[in-house]
Parts: sequence; C-alpha cells; structure tokens
Amino acid sequence: MYNYKMIIQYDGSRYNGWQRQGNVNQTIQQRFENVLSIMCDEKIEIFASGRTDAGVHAMGQVANFKCRTEFACEEILSYVNRYLPEDIKVITVEQVDERFHSRLCATSKTYEYTLATEKPDVFVRKYVYHTYQKPDARRMECAAEKLIGTHDFHGFSSLGKTKKSTVRTINSIEISEKNGMIKIKVNGNGFLYNMMRILAGTLYEIGIGEKSVNVIDDILRAKDRQYAGATLPACGLTLLEVFY
Amino acid sequence: MYNYKMIIQYDGSRYNGWQRQGNVNQTIQQRFENVLSIMCDEKIEIFASGRTDAGVHAMGQVANFKCRTEFACEEILSYVNRYLPEDIKVITVEQVDERFHSRLCATSKTYEYTLATEKPDVFVRKYVYHTYQKPDARRMECAAEKLIGTHDFHGFSSLGKTKKSTVRTINSIEISEKNGMIKIKVNGNGFLYNMMRILAGTLYEIGIGEKSVNVIDDILRAKDRQYAGATLPACGLTLLEVFY
Repeated sequence: MYNYKMIIQYDGSRYNGWQRQGNVNQTIQQRFENVLSIMCDEKIEIFASGRTDAGVHAMGQVANFKCRTEFACEEILSYVNRYLPEDIKVITVEQVDERFHSRLCATSKTYEYTLATEKPDVFVRKYVYHTYQKPDARRMECAAEKLIGTHDFHGFSSLGKTKKSTVRTINSIEISEKNGMIKIKVNGNGFLYNMMRILAGTLYEIGIGEKSVNVIDDILRAKDRQYAGATLPACGLTLLEVFY
Repeated sequence: MYNYKMIIQYDGSRYNGWQRQGNVNQTIQQRFENVLSIMCDEKIEIFASGRTDAGVHAMGQVANFKCRTEFACEEILSYVNRYLPEDIKVITVEQVDERFHSRLCATSKTYEYTLATEKPDVFVRKYVYHTYQKPDARRMECAAEKLIGTHDFHGFSSLGKTKKSTVRTINSIEISEKNGMIKIKVNGNGFLYNMMRILAGTLYEIGIGEKSVNVIDDILRAKDRQYAGATLPACGLTLLEVFY
C-alpha cells in the first residue's frame, strides 16, 4: 500500500466538521473520500490529525490515506484540488512511510482563536468572533500562563464523565493584540472536546473582568466545566499547524 | 452644514456596486444613505471618490456627506458600523472643510487586481480571480511600463464614442508575485469605465503569450477596445486607497 500525507486548508463555515457522519455529505472527510475513491478506483478512507468541529477552519490540517496504486504527488495535488470545492484546498502532498498516521504520530498541534474587539475587517469577518466587550489582553496573558504545563483539563471540556485520561500538556499560549483583534494561539499535545473554545471563552471572561485570573486554578483543581467560561462560537477557531 | 469624510471598506460580492440605482436597494451608496438619513433625521446624500462596479471590493474607499447637525466623529463611526451590514465597515470618520468633495478633490487612486495562478487560498478566494493559465510576470511588467504616463486610454475602456476626455495619467504600476498570486497595483489620476479590469485582462493575455508586449502601443495608438484583452471579473478588483 502507498501512503500519502497531505497538508490541507479549509473554510469550515459550510461544513458539519471534519468527521464523516452516516448520511451527511456535508463533512470534509466525506468530500475527500468521494474524490479520492474515484481517483484511486477503490474505497479510500482518510485519517486526519484530529476531527475539527462544525464551523471550525484549518490553515494546516494534516491527513493521510493509503491506496493500492502509486501516484505522483503532483498528480494527486492537482486532481484533488480540481474536484474539491473552492473552500477546501490541498497545499502539499507527500509520499510517506506506510507506518505514518496523521493522528497517532502527531506530537503537538497549534490552534488559534481570534476575537474581534470592534467590527471586524470585512475580509476576515467569517473567521473571527466579534465580542461584545473589549477584554484586557494583559489580564488574559496572566491567566494563560497558569494553563501552561501538564494538567487535567476536564474542566475545560464538554466531556461528561469519562474513563479516558483528560490530562494534556499545553506547551505555549501567545496572546497578541493588533488591528482591533486579539489572537489566542495555543500549542499543546492534544485537545479535548471543545477545549480550545472553552479556553478562549474563559480567557475572554477573565479579560473583561467577569472572572478573576485565579479562576484558572479553581477549574484545574475542581475539573468541573461549570466554573469555566462559555464555549465561544466555532467561527473564530482555526487549526493552524500539526507537528510530527 | 457640517461635512464628514469617511474611509470605508467593503466586500462588494453581494452588491450592485456603489452607485444608487432607482429602486435597487442592493447598492453601497443606498445602504449608507438609509443609515445616515435616520441618524441625521434628514435626507442625506453621500459622495464617493468614484463609483465601484458590481462585485468590486474596497479597502479604502473615501466618501463624504453633509448634514445640518454636528456629531462627534466617534459617534458617527459607531452608529454607522452598528447599522450597516457586516460586509461594509467604516474605518475612520473625520470632520472636514465644507469645500471638501471626495471625488472632485481626489488627486489619485490606487486599485489592485489579484490573479490566483493556482487554486486560491480558501480564505481569500472571493477576492481574487482564478486564472486558467499561469502568466509570466516579467512579460506583464515589460508591458506595464509602456502604460505609465499620460495617454488616451479609450482603448482600455468599455466606453463608446464620447465627447469627454479619455486622457488619464498612470503614475505607477507594480506587478508582484507571491504565494501563487500575481497582483497588479495601479496608481492613476483617474480610471475610465472598466479600465482596471481591461488593463488586467490585457496584461494577463500578454503574460500567457497570447498577445505581444507591443500590443500596448497599438491599443494606445488606435484607441480601440477591440485590440485590448478581456474585461476580467469584478471579484479580483479592489480599490485600495484614494489620495488628496
């Protein structure tokens, strides 16, 4: 079997997320599998570094698929880009070792959440969340520092009780403020369900003074989602890069 | 009368251009006049530096309006941005001398046409024109140089016979190539109907070798639109800046 790794970008606005779901055609995985199965003339399954939720965007999602026929990478790139819709684009295709798996081999991922603190620039309006109030980025930074490291992030997820480990490591968080936008860029070894959107919501509520900086300690200690902030809308979230 | 100058951006995709037309509500001018007339409690007319065609975008359109009531600029900015749709945004508002007129006082304007020579980045796909072939940017540059200066640009317009002067001055043309896109940035003292889109179309056809570099001389000499290239789609065109 030949194994191909692709770096992919998409505007998630129109989709029910990455993961194929029964008879819903409007998922990114399904779109890829439709096109690749025709190209390869066999049923293809594609594996991403992680599923992104409905409405979430990607600048550098990684996915791989295996097939029986060997193709030139350039050939795959141009075929797939031609038949995929204009809101999904493959940036690079690379042939990789048969053991490579986009999700299992990933060492970390970087996500970015963008808050527009004033009416957003019209050209990026679909990729940001327009907040009602303008948070204090310094307060957000102080709170963000407390999140760095290895913690049980269950309180920052929409998961119910689970037997699986909810311990993850956040390597870095950068908060930047520019042109009426605050960006929250997080690199970590894994993200729980809704974790980025709840992290962003909690930092936002801290930034506008609705929550104290120390609430982070409480949430990490109690592991209870009720102490954390709102799950911010998917439109503001982008998967930037996956590391191996 | 108080006179206010605004710098405006818009995503032109949904609109029938800037200029108000009878009973068509879907123009940018009409949207502004609706909001400003309510704010000022009198019928307001707004004047732009120039009308942009249906589908053309703006990063820095300039428009002014006069009214009987004095407002703080900050107040106008926030009122107008709240009531205008998300694809129109006012960047700045400034109170100016009563004699200031956005069109009559403009000394030059900069437009940019963007060609995507491969499948465009999904996040900018609505603001570029995806070409079928990849033009040679150097050839386009050679041709562009011939356009600089004061010429009769009638051959680069969709105007029929006209008694008005079709002489304009192009001060600069920059062709840049980056990330699968070629940008054609033109500064001039005035632009005829469809002139930017025909200029871009002609440079593109020169770039792909369908026309010779010297065709520019022929078009300027003959002043006949039939020698020029196609009128490229409006979606690739953006009004960047207006100078006074």
